[in-house]
Amino acid sequence: MGEEVKLYGNWASPFSCRVDIALKLKGVEYRYYEEDLKNKSASLLEYNPIHKKVPAFVHNEKPLAESLVILEYIDETWKTNPIFPQDPYERAQARFLARFIDEKLMPTLREAWINEYKKKEAEEANGYLEFLEKELKGKYFGGEIIGAADIAGNTLALWLPIYEELKGVEILTEAKFPKLCKWSHDFATHPVVKEVSPSKEELIAIFKPRFNITK
Amino acid sequence: MGEEVKLYGNWASPFSCRVDIALKLKGVEYRYYEEDLKNKSASLLEYNPIHKKVPAFVHNEKPLAESLVILEYIDETWKTNPIFPQDPYERAQARFLARFIDEKLMPTLREAWINEYKKKEAEEANGYLEFLEKELKGKYFGGEIIGAADIAGNTLALWLPIYEELKGVEILTEAKFPKLCKWSHDFATHPVVKEVSPSKEELIAIFKPRFNITK
Repeated sequence: MGEEVKLYGNWASPFSCRVDIALKLKGVEYRYYEEDLKNKSASLLEYNPIHKKVPAFVHNEKPLAESLVILEYIDETWKTNPIFPQDPYERAQARFLARFIDEKLMPTLREAWINEYKKKEAEEANGYLEFLEKELKGKYFGGEIIGAADIAGNTLALWLPIYEELKGVEILTEAKFPKLCKWSHDFATHPVVKEVSPSKEELIAIFKPRFNITK
Repeated sequence: MGEEVKLYGNWASPFSCRVDIALKLKGVEYRYYEEDLKNKSASLLEYNPIHKKVPAFVHNEKPLAESLVILEYIDETWKTNPIFPQDPYERAQARFLARFIDEKLMPTLREAWINEYKKKEAEEANGYLEFLEKELKGKYFGGEIIGAADIAGNTLALWLPIYEELKGVEILTEAKFPKLCKWSHDFATHPVVKEVSPSKEELIAIFKPRFNITK
């Protein structure tokens, strides 16, 4: 078919990693362009003029931005190994969870812990994690097979531990969130996720200076 | 089929009006529960525990929140009069535009104009409106038939004019945005939109006190 699939990403961005995961799960061949976020390419700015961010995804010269929008497009275009459930209600729940992670959970966690500790936000984030713990009914959010809500959860499974380590705090603990902890481990060790995601060591090396930690 | 469809909304909320529009466009019968936003019902809080906001949508006791997630569910469940395009790329664009309106355009417009005038944000919002003006290729964002991106644009077509009037500013002008102005008019006068949306007078009456305008 002469298909051309391009992804403009950054290795340390969870959002472009999501697109890598979806494409690899489906076995779609694509060209990956690593972006320097301090000196973004003309192509990235052309393909994602609104957000000017990674990921930008291009299929046969048709560009798309926003990781969750791209995930849906990939799932509808390449049908093998679906990442969204077939049932409309389950699909709606996957969309809700993915947005919840991006718009509620992670911003509140960041607000609670990243700069100074904020009690109110930490309690709110705790409530969100309790909600998510209850939502986990199988191995993954979608059941036994990894899906879109799990992929959107890469920020929680792979990036949050970096914050925890650099700030010396424990947020997602076995005692409080046993199911989420197991999910986080299963997700992180899934062969495709592992293949395309940065290691903990690599992320710590790049995030350390941003936390003003010199030792 | 004994279907039970319920919507918990508020007449002045553009987000619950979106769900009304989608249901009416498809001819789905539903029960509407008007929420007092200062004294929310136990049902609303039960059905939307995360956001605790209208709209909450319930189909055969299965609850959903978030207007854009609900619109997709409605479109996939009741197939008549589709509101999302059939083509995956066009569908992705509709999703992108709907999110863009909610997450970029409207927050920036609010930030620029609602309290004190902020030049930087106003310029940014202007750029977003220019982008949207170019995206409008037919009568509606989806072409000749009203669709999800248009419905998400109800904040722009019906709520922005209230801000403009109460603040005495002109943002969406014929001179700068002729296509968006025509779209805004066509959208506002669409029979279904008109039937379920509050009038300008009703909205002005309720928003006036929030702007501290007493005369």
